[in-house]
Amino acid sequence: MTRQQLVEQIFTKQTYLCVGLDTDDTKLPAHLKGKPNAVLDFNKAIIDATLAHCVSYKINTAFYEAMGARGWEIMQETFAYIPNTHLTIADAKRGDIGNTSHQYARAFFEHMNVDAITVAPYMGEDSVRPFLEYDGKWTIVLGLTSNKGSENFQRLKLAPNKEELPLVPSVISGDRSELLFEKVLETVSTWGTPGNLMFVAGATQAHEFEHLRSIVPQQFLLVPGVGAQGGSLRDVSKYGMHNECGLLVNASRAVIYASSGEDFAIAAQQIAQEYHEEMKQYLPQQG
Amino acid sequence: MTRQQLVEQIFTKQTYLCVGLDTDDTKLPAHLKGKPNAVLDFNKAIIDATLAHCVSYKINTAFYEAMGARGWEIMQETFAYIPNTHLTIADAKRGDIGNTSHQYARAFFEHMNVDAITVAPYMGEDSVRPFLEYDGKWTIVLGLTSNKGSENFQRLKLAPNKEELPLVPSVISGDRSELLFEKVLETVSTWGTPGNLMFVAGATQAHEFEHLRSIVPQQFLLVPGVGAQGGSLRDVSKYGMHNECGLLVNASRAVIYASSGEDFAIAAQQIAQEYHEEMKQYLPQQG
Repeated sequence: MTRQQLVEQIFTKQTYLCVGLDTDDTKLPAHLKGKPNAVLDFNKAIIDATLAHCVSYKINTAFYEAMGARGWEIMQETFAYIPNTHLTIADAKRGDIGNTSHQYARAFFEHMNVDAITVAPYMGEDSVRPFLEYDGKWTIVLGLTSNKGSENFQRLKLAPNKEELPLVPSVISGDRSELLFEKVLETVSTWGTPGNLMFVAGATQAHEFEHLRSIVPQQFLLVPGVGAQGGSLRDVSKYGMHNECGLLVNASRAVIYASSGEDFAIAAQQIAQEYHEEMKQYLPQQG
Repeated sequence: MTRQQLVEQIFTKQTYLCVGLDTDDTKLPAHLKGKPNAVLDFNKAIIDATLAHCVSYKINTAFYEAMGARGWEIMQETFAYIPNTHLTIADAKRGDIGNTSHQYARAFFEHMNVDAITVAPYMGEDSVRPFLEYDGKWTIVLGLTSNKGSENFQRLKLAPNKEELPLVPSVISGDRSELLFEKVLETVSTWGTPGNLMFVAGATQAHEFEHLRSIVPQQFLLVPGVGAQGGSLRDVSKYGMHNECGLLVNASRAVIYASSGEDFAIAAQQIAQEYHEEMKQYLPQQG
């Protein structure tokens, strides 16, 4: 899916919701548990129920790998079920030396035929490039995550480099020292284009999105976890959105586990619709 | 496998070789290509041929994921074929928020029943802890990798923290500023013990191992890529080894693709034996 197609979907449907199919086989509704295709049936029902309210589905590979080889098949079958109007994301957080990253790219872009994959930046340029080389596919690199552990390394202050001062003074560190995630955003954004590269941006405070936007003004940001904290969708949209939207806001558990009863799909539809209604208010008018 | 068992294996067999089963289905010997169980048969033949010369096998998950769901099964079947005298490593470079990392730990430690998994540090403590919580299992965190991309972020100089000066002045940056990978080694080593935590250490220059050892004196280091560069095994051993060895040196392509003919297993055995003979010379006498 190209950027133009994604933007069209967002403005036509008036939503930038991504539904996270992080389906845990131990947390299925009671009436499905133990059935042979329980997870796949669950996913299909969630997709059918939420299709009109979102533009993207994200599968976190961990939940499927935890089911063994059959989980890998279910992941493939779930991706295959999603219509090509919706951006499919393998939230895999892969990354290895070039030759090996190329194998991951084959796995997800060729075998699984997803539109996008999340990638960890620690191993640097040659670990990211093999994903960017695929035409019409998206690489979504971890920038800033919203978990507590983001403080350990992502927010470390870097020594100022006199020859190469950061383009933008750091709002967060309060001086011209960059933080690691800022350097990651700056550096990685030179490897791709706003048409094939996005970032995971899980800022815990809304004003950080304003700062993120000063570093990566054009890129799409995949924002995890708004559902779990609640209430921040307005702020994320206010500070993170640009005139082509530029946001995919993910909700996983809030949608898929909205009810643990037989009405799980109806409940998921209702929650997705609530996000949809709210998002309509925040999207800019397209000229 | 406990640390004591691993050390016993190393000194009894007089080798610290890890054979990397990065089997690329497009690079199989001609006589195997196209056969239904070609990759599994290839792996089993390599394992049979090299068992006496190594203490560990490492599977890079990327090569198996690139084969789709059947690849996941082959990975499982390969791990199951390796006897429990050998440390099994899933080189998966996973890492995600706590709840999700826990699913990866389930996948590899429970389903796949491997002894060890490699983990990327970017997302911090809560992304690593779920792996460390498994008794009798190993977490191998990326410290310093040997690819060119390690310069992008791993070797960034951090701003000095006046309250918390690094324990060891940086040999590499030449002052008391730490580099990111040094901070990663220091910080992560407080989350585990030398009995459940190792690091990937792929220094490109041998003197760096001396420096690494000043930061993580006791931990085992998984050293990739000695085979491809050649000639550095002596130096890695000289500067990186401690009295319990503390090294697992990996060779993948150099062993498994030693010959592309029908004699591939014999050729693999010969290369593994060469490493073994050399390693015998470097291991310290155990008192």
